[in-house]
Amino acid sequence: MSGHRFEILAIDGAARSGSLHMKRGTVSTPAFMPVGTAGSVKAMLPESVAETGAEIVLGNTYHLMLRPGAERIARLGALHKFMNWPRPILTDSGGFQVMSLANLRKITEEGVRFRSHVDGAEHFLSPERAMEIQRLLGSDIQMVLDECAPFPSTEGQIEKSLALSMRWAKRSKAAFGEQEQHSCFGIVQGGVYPHLRRRSAEELTAIGFDGYAIGGLAVGEGQAAMFEVLEATIPHLSPNHPRYLMGVGKPDDIVGAALRGIDMFDCVLPTRSGRNGQAFTWKGPLNLRNARHAEDEAPLDATCSCPACRSYSRAYLHHVVKSGEIIASMLLTWHNLTFFQDVMRAFRAAVAGKNAASFARNFLADYRAGESEDSG
Amino acid sequence: MSGHRFEILAIDGAARSGSLHMKRGTVSTPAFMPVGTAGSVKAMLPESVAETGAEIVLGNTYHLMLRPGAERIARLGALHKFMNWPRPILTDSGGFQVMSLANLRKITEEGVRFRSHVDGAEHFLSPERAMEIQRLLGSDIQMVLDECAPFPSTEGQIEKSLALSMRWAKRSKAAFGEQEQHSCFGIVQGGVYPHLRRRSAEELTAIGFDGYAIGGLAVGEGQAAMFEVLEATIPHLSPNHPRYLMGVGKPDDIVGAALRGIDMFDCVLPTRSGRNGQAFTWKGPLNLRNARHAEDEAPLDATCSCPACRSYSRAYLHHVVKSGEIIASMLLTWHNLTFFQDVMRAFRAAVAGKNAASFARNFLADYRAGESEDSG
Repeated sequence: MSGHRFEILAIDGAARSGSLHMKRGTVSTPAFMPVGTAGSVKAMLPESVAETGAEIVLGNTYHLMLRPGAERIARLGALHKFMNWPRPILTDSGGFQVMSLANLRKITEEGVRFRSHVDGAEHFLSPERAMEIQRLLGSDIQMVLDECAPFPSTEGQIEKSLALSMRWAKRSKAAFGEQEQHSCFGIVQGGVYPHLRRRSAEELTAIGFDGYAIGGLAVGEGQAAMFEVLEATIPHLSPNHPRYLMGVGKPDDIVGAALRGIDMFDCVLPTRSGRNGQAFTWKGPLNLRNARHAEDEAPLDATCSCPACRSYSRAYLHHVVKSGEIIASMLLTWHNLTFFQDVMRAFRAAVAGKNAASFARNFLADYRAGESEDSG
Repeated sequence: MSGHRFEILAIDGAARSGSLHMKRGTVSTPAFMPVGTAGSVKAMLPESVAETGAEIVLGNTYHLMLRPGAERIARLGALHKFMNWPRPILTDSGGFQVMSLANLRKITEEGVRFRSHVDGAEHFLSPERAMEIQRLLGSDIQMVLDECAPFPSTEGQIEKSLALSMRWAKRSKAAFGEQEQHSCFGIVQGGVYPHLRRRSAEELTAIGFDGYAIGGLAVGEGQAAMFEVLEATIPHLSPNHPRYLMGVGKPDDIVGAALRGIDMFDCVLPTRSGRNGQAFTWKGPLNLRNARHAEDEAPLDATCSCPACRSYSRAYLHHVVKSGEIIASMLLTWHNLTFFQDVMRAFRAAVAGKNAASFARNFLADYRAGESEDSG
């Protein structure tokens, strides 16, 4: 029993395009999931998120358990209703953000004890509690609790951390139990060590999950090392299940990873960059703070259909970014999310057209050529 | 020649409802104008501002002259195009904000020299330059430069300041000249002194403007004193021209002033309060930070059609306000602007139904009864 049906529609080399059918809607893959950290994709109304083409968003267990609290969200009718997003939601397990945001962490076999970065209150997250929180939230795709080892770590450290993560994965799956219409994904760890990644993939497969994520990447190892890990890992994952690369990434990371067989992505980059005056385009990122945009009547991207590109000049965007106006965050976030969805759509079409590799090559050439242009 | 045609549709006591017909659209009066300080009604897209029912917005000459600059906006096709608001725009003269925001002000007969609060650069604003800037912006209704005396001021200070404002009004009108499809409003000053207000109204009428504003109120004199000034001033203004009470105000101020014959209002209150977690309702303002909303599944206002009320609980709004999410500013601003427009619409209907006084009485009773409830 699985909470979804994963239909592969086209395959081109290692890349594939498909449909992830869930109770609350179908997600075309490869898919990019905007991050709705604390019950909001920042600076966007949910109907606007849907207008960008997003079919699923990610919610952060760590943030929601601290504020407003999982039990409270459950009493209020669960996360979809609370945040007015009726479509699918994937939640992480909270583990990654406990490591990066919480204070006074103490990891034991049982779980992790930490203090909230919001109010200092003590909390405890175990595999069982992580799954309980995600069930209370009503998440469509629930992630196992794992430990994210820092980069760089020695092989010995990674091996020890991986072993704990695999024991936690087993407990997470047991705690998830059998839930109609909800899915549970395991998370492959193992750092940059191919044999550990393979071991992790095999152990998770033996447990049996509805999908498989690859975690512990985009933490400083660099794109080449990340792609090597993907190439060493993906062959050991079931071809019939969705594969999710967690926390990735830049548009060129995403295209390269999708070409290697990844089906799902999430990243704060389009939303966070949007709030910082950065816009992504087919010709690379633009920094709207740059004075060269001050009298530019052209839109951000003449090929884009988002409100920022339809109705505003670069000069206006420059002005509102410089002035700290909220509309700058709203428009640039909307644009960036639209761009990420447009890239995914184009990639899926390329897979269907059996030209994913040449699409990726052309995309990267244009994207990187433009990027260097705006370094000033 | 005037930039508008003002049609009075109904009169009830001193109150009236009408239509201000302009090249870029018709504004139903009494009208509330949202403030779009620096080329944006904060936390709103312009199409959302229009959805609230707003038919005209206010732009601030002071902010726009400093950044991005009036000449730049003119080169970019003027303010309507720049900020994507095709409907009417009224601009102030910059005088009020020079007094409240700029540094090192020096007022002479010629004008006011000051330093920008943004970058410290020196600027000079004269009646002629204030009108030139508003012409460059393409403003539909342009305001004369005046001096706003602080409250409290002695009668002698007010009289001296008023005399300067009246000389500046004459120069402003001369600088405005004759412009097809644009209007120029004078501004009545005179503090809380009825005979000075009367003198100001008569001097402005002698110059001849397309509309008359009342300035220098809502600066600390209190509602009763403000209403007394309106009652002492309005009889000396042409009944056939629109009357605009600048910078006002709270919903109860607006209803009371409209009842006394004011046609136009502007205030940052609905937008600024929205960014601070405050929502206006028919039962008074609510502070969404208040813990009593934390598990309240009810909407902000069951009678309101804005997105905040249609799709979110008070519990969600409480959560996003407490979490500092941008969506809190977006939703509460949208709600507050909708509420202000709903109040104006209801007031206009009351004038048409010849029951403006009883509408105002009932409105104030409900509004003030609720207000005290949320003091906790």
